[in-house]
Amino acid sequence: MDKIRIGILGYGNLGRGVELGILQNRDMELVGVFTRREPGALNLANKNSRAFHIKEAREMTDIIDVMILCGGSKSDLPVQGPEFAALFNTVDGFDTHAKIQDYYEKVNQAALKAKKTCVIATGWDPGLFSLSRLFAEAVLPNGKSYTFWGKGVSQGHSDAIRRIEGVEDARQYTIPIEEALERVRRGELPDFTPRQKHLRECYVVAKEGADLERIENEIKSMPYYFSDYDTIVHFISKEELEKNHSRLSHGGVVIHSGKTGLNNENTHVIEYSLKLDSNPDFTANVLLAYARAAYRLNKEGIYGAKTVFDIAPAYLSVKSGEELRRTLL
Amino acid sequence: MDKIRIGILGYGNLGRGVELGILQNRDMELVGVFTRREPGALNLANKNSRAFHIKEAREMTDIIDVMILCGGSKSDLPVQGPEFAALFNTVDGFDTHAKIQDYYEKVNQAALKAKKTCVIATGWDPGLFSLSRLFAEAVLPNGKSYTFWGKGVSQGHSDAIRRIEGVEDARQYTIPIEEALERVRRGELPDFTPRQKHLRECYVVAKEGADLERIENEIKSMPYYFSDYDTIVHFISKEELEKNHSRLSHGGVVIHSGKTGLNNENTHVIEYSLKLDSNPDFTANVLLAYARAAYRLNKEGIYGAKTVFDIAPAYLSVKSGEELRRTLL
Repeated sequence: MDKIRIGILGYGNLGRGVELGILQNRDMELVGVFTRREPGALNLANKNSRAFHIKEAREMTDIIDVMILCGGSKSDLPVQGPEFAALFNTVDGFDTHAKIQDYYEKVNQAALKAKKTCVIATGWDPGLFSLSRLFAEAVLPNGKSYTFWGKGVSQGHSDAIRRIEGVEDARQYTIPIEEALERVRRGELPDFTPRQKHLRECYVVAKEGADLERIENEIKSMPYYFSDYDTIVHFISKEELEKNHSRLSHGGVVIHSGKTGLNNENTHVIEYSLKLDSNPDFTANVLLAYARAAYRLNKEGIYGAKTVFDIAPAYLSVKSGEELRRTLL
Repeated sequence: MDKIRIGILGYGNLGRGVELGILQNRDMELVGVFTRREPGALNLANKNSRAFHIKEAREMTDIIDVMILCGGSKSDLPVQGPEFAALFNTVDGFDTHAKIQDYYEKVNQAALKAKKTCVIATGWDPGLFSLSRLFAEAVLPNGKSYTFWGKGVSQGHSDAIRRIEGVEDARQYTIPIEEALERVRRGELPDFTPRQKHLRECYVVAKEGADLERIENEIKSMPYYFSDYDTIVHFISKEELEKNHSRLSHGGVVIHSGKTGLNNENTHVIEYSLKLDSNPDFTANVLLAYARAAYRLNKEGIYGAKTVFDIAPAYLSVKSGEELRRTLL
């Protein structure tokens, strides 16, 4: 079997997750990790992995089948996505929901021109959760979907706290409210305010001498991020933060309930939930399954930007069509 | 908008569910219900629906876009599937897992020859549960999937009891064993015997004077169906059976757990669950979403038999690609 030759662009938690995930997929192999840093300085998880400077990537287009973009959605991907789509089949986890359509168009244009296949915005949300919402809505159109996130750290909210004067470090947990979950699971179709769905719990390390009351007020009144939620603020030491709040676990649930019958007498509840010890590891594995799809679609001459909605599930599996029908259908 | 013109073949609980489901989909309309019975004798759920004799179907190939086959997997579909694939785009819920590959080949041959698109074996299992297994296995290859069914009536097991001498009627509930569910949810990867996963509870109406002890023994010792399970048998009256055991609710759960990390230190649990007040209504709605896909694929010149694995999720939704990216991704 010809193995799918994978490149990794960017080596944070996600890149490391992809590096390790490749070892679980017998039809894949790692060509190398590409970085803006000094390649020799990277502390790679697998001793057989190689690191290259990002500049070397464009000389390796013929030995890499799919480049997995592991940079951030804020500043890395908006540049790297279209740039690498002109050179490689790519997969990324672009997750700024509001900007996906714009990003899609830019990557699509570059990929079509270069005859590449680029899967954007995959992972678990966007990604598997998006699929779950689509299937549920298509099957129960007379119904409603609810997405709950957590318990897990929100990077965006943690960053927002760190920008407050007097804050040295912070972690913000998004926590679904159990009562809301239970109402949806019972098949009710409530309209929730943000406050009714999620709680925000913050662990903050303040700089010496900082005004804690002011910091707490600034957090709780921050528009969009916190003001619409019940927010709990704990001040803790730097040591405590590192010891108790550096876990990467996350998760969430999509619940869709809908009605059928002559008089809407039947209620159905679809629930898709994830409990993840490591958010980056799991996301990395989703990217790898879609790397397999990008590789195969490209071989079939199907080019351009694709999302999870555009890809038939069979492309994700190492099994053949007949094997899938015999073992998983 | 040109509506998708649907035909329904067979009018049991599933056919009735499709009839009602069409009313929830603004891009679909019912042409008619086709039956082997006297059409005028059908008691249709919607007063605007029309019934035709099955013989009339072949004269209506140009006014029906998709025919939904609502017959049983045991004797109806093996004949009707290939036969109607030669005339119409079709969708069915063929659910004899062991015979799916053979059925696929027969329908595929007929459909390719007639340039039709035929979605086979959809519903929730096979169907949405199959998808859930595929996605989970592709994303967490170092892991294992478990499917639990129920609580709900198993038609096959109820039929098996009815074939025992002295039995007038019966309902068999398949019930997942809570302890097994909990172990899998905790991320353990146990090997279960059938007995450890499901309990079988039977409500039996015996004929007058029948030997109850013999019936109970015959049920409990029936190979494959019951002998590998803990089975509870209740003898009840015909009235009790009709009053308390005619509900069509069902459900189940697919749980996949898997490991990642340098030393498999991270556990992830994916859970997909369904709680359905009406098994046939929900199944009907899945068939309708795939009818939309069959219609669109056929328009694009993609012919042959298809399963849920072969169809990109976007084909199921009434929304456009851009709308999907903006609202559900």
